[in-house]
Amino acid sequence: MADFAPVKFIGERLFFLDQTLLPNEERYIEMKTKEDVREAIYNLRVRGAPAIGIAAAYGIYISVKDIKTDSFNVFLNEFRDIKHYLKSARPTAVNLSWALMRMENRITGLSGSPVSDIKRELLSEAEKIRAEDEAACAQIGEYGLSLLKPGMGILTHCNAGALAASKYGTSLAPIYLGYERGYNFKVFACETRPLLQGARLTAWELSRAGADVTLICDNMASIVMKNGWIDAVVAGCDRMAANGDGANKIGTSGLAILAKEYGIPFYMFVPVSTIDLDTAVGGDIKIELRDGAEIYKMWYKNDMAPAGVKTYNPAFDVTEAKYITAVITEKGIVYPPYGENLKNR
Amino acid sequence: MADFAPVKFIGERLFFLDQTLLPNEERYIEMKTKEDVREAIYNLRVRGAPAIGIAAAYGIYISVKDIKTDSFNVFLNEFRDIKHYLKSARPTAVNLSWALMRMENRITGLSGSPVSDIKRELLSEAEKIRAEDEAACAQIGEYGLSLLKPGMGILTHCNAGALAASKYGTSLAPIYLGYERGYNFKVFACETRPLLQGARLTAWELSRAGADVTLICDNMASIVMKNGWIDAVVAGCDRMAANGDGANKIGTSGLAILAKEYGIPFYMFVPVSTIDLDTAVGGDIKIELRDGAEIYKMWYKNDMAPAGVKTYNPAFDVTEAKYITAVITEKGIVYPPYGENLKNR
Repeated sequence: MADFAPVKFIGERLFFLDQTLLPNEERYIEMKTKEDVREAIYNLRVRGAPAIGIAAAYGIYISVKDIKTDSFNVFLNEFRDIKHYLKSARPTAVNLSWALMRMENRITGLSGSPVSDIKRELLSEAEKIRAEDEAACAQIGEYGLSLLKPGMGILTHCNAGALAASKYGTSLAPIYLGYERGYNFKVFACETRPLLQGARLTAWELSRAGADVTLICDNMASIVMKNGWIDAVVAGCDRMAANGDGANKIGTSGLAILAKEYGIPFYMFVPVSTIDLDTAVGGDIKIELRDGAEIYKMWYKNDMAPAGVKTYNPAFDVTEAKYITAVITEKGIVYPPYGENLKNR
Repeated sequence: MADFAPVKFIGERLFFLDQTLLPNEERYIEMKTKEDVREAIYNLRVRGAPAIGIAAAYGIYISVKDIKTDSFNVFLNEFRDIKHYLKSARPTAVNLSWALMRMENRITGLSGSPVSDIKRELLSEAEKIRAEDEAACAQIGEYGLSLLKPGMGILTHCNAGALAASKYGTSLAPIYLGYERGYNFKVFACETRPLLQGARLTAWELSRAGADVTLICDNMASIVMKNGWIDAVVAGCDRMAANGDGANKIGTSGLAILAKEYGIPFYMFVPVSTIDLDTAVGGDIKIELRDGAEIYKMWYKNDMAPAGVKTYNPAFDVTEAKYITAVITEKGIVYPPYGENLKNR
């Protein structure tokens, strides 16, 4: 499997693989301060719901480990300020706030303990979050693979692979496991405008693993489905509401609607940490709007739209539960009705 | 209206506006030989089904006007060789072969006439094709506008505007006419990967006309429809089969399916010259496959996908008749069943 990881912690030093440089350069950047961590999350140097959780857990540890105080309360207050600061980096993925809350709960569970002990426990919690994610991804892969057959054509969107999580990723986990077992899938990767996570990241990590991957533009999904090349659509998730509506990378909802129209199953891969039972329906999920320059910059030499053009650049959309054939978690496959079955998973 | 045109013929000289340079540069390139013309069509310097027809008509006139012969048969044979050569530039848009056939029919209708007369008649035929297209676009605009109301949100794909045809274009014609009459549409332009005709051309020409246009990535169509911002989707057409299936820029079929799902009308704007009754169904339309480099090149400094990645790059897809609410031609609005009603239009 992957010889890379989105987050590496080596001898008290934290590194993120700078995913904005892929596929052209594989460079790890060291995170020394809370500003480094927030900037890296905001600018998508580390991205993908589970990886953001892991990055935030280690990131807040790095940010608080040098706080000079012996007072539990002083430490907790400083921790909370930093947590608030990091949490604001991206609003949609629930794993960011989820991981930071787990870290805070670790502190409050040790109320009154020496600060040095608490710092050690925080590192242990971050390591636990990562280890749990790795186990969850492997388990999600097994459940996902049970839905697939050798030789199938699989459409992916954005990147919910090794770069977005631990080891196998979420929606790419069954693909990796399948390849290890001779399933020979034919993967079609949607490039995923505007930031091209499908072209830059998914095509990169799957090619590296020797998988059969074909890159297409997002608007070609309909024709490849119509050509009969796709047997399943797999997608990650950044936050799933209690009713099964799932926010994921912009474009996901359109793929789910196309899949339904062509009679192709649409599977959403959702670690339990990404299910937010406190959010009732998809309409309650805050959708991050990003700078329109992401759409018309990045091109060779000149902008690719007239100067001053208006843009709309949501980073996510919500796929309604009714378009989701099944939700794959590390605890099993959940089928509709999601309102009931997600709660009882 | 537009102070530019995709094809200009001035004092026996033929110029195409090089649309590959837009929106950064407005440069006309002179067409002196058949090689110039074919290269310009193949590389999309001139594009859009009606504009390709006009470009081919003037282009073949430029290519044959200096043939040195007095023999009708020698001239006709040379004409046919050049026609075959130009026709192969792009297979999907029917207007290319349609315009070249009209030019040939003009010659055969004058069988035995002096070659110098025939050359003059060919120029007159090219001018007729352009004038007819201009009238057709204006008429299409009137019919299209009858389907729209002031203040509506309109989604466009690719470019079927002034750059793709004469004066008003086809699917943008009702938008231009509407603006002239105070309709104040809110237009959302899909960027149209891989070659960004929506961002580079539609956003450019609509902005220039003072229209309210918002640029989005193709995969954002679902969310803007769900947001309730779209009241109609308008698209051009490169070839419509006898049963009403219409080939248009890649991505169109997905937009039509989304529109149906969200209960939004999907209108296809189809000059009669684009209806090909000799093609029974959409499956019979040859879909042009283009170089995958169009997907992963064009970016700043580096490629945006791993080296050697496989791609699939169809330039068009076919929107099935069942997703098309109405077909707008210069002779009127055609509703289903198209098999019957297109024939009797």
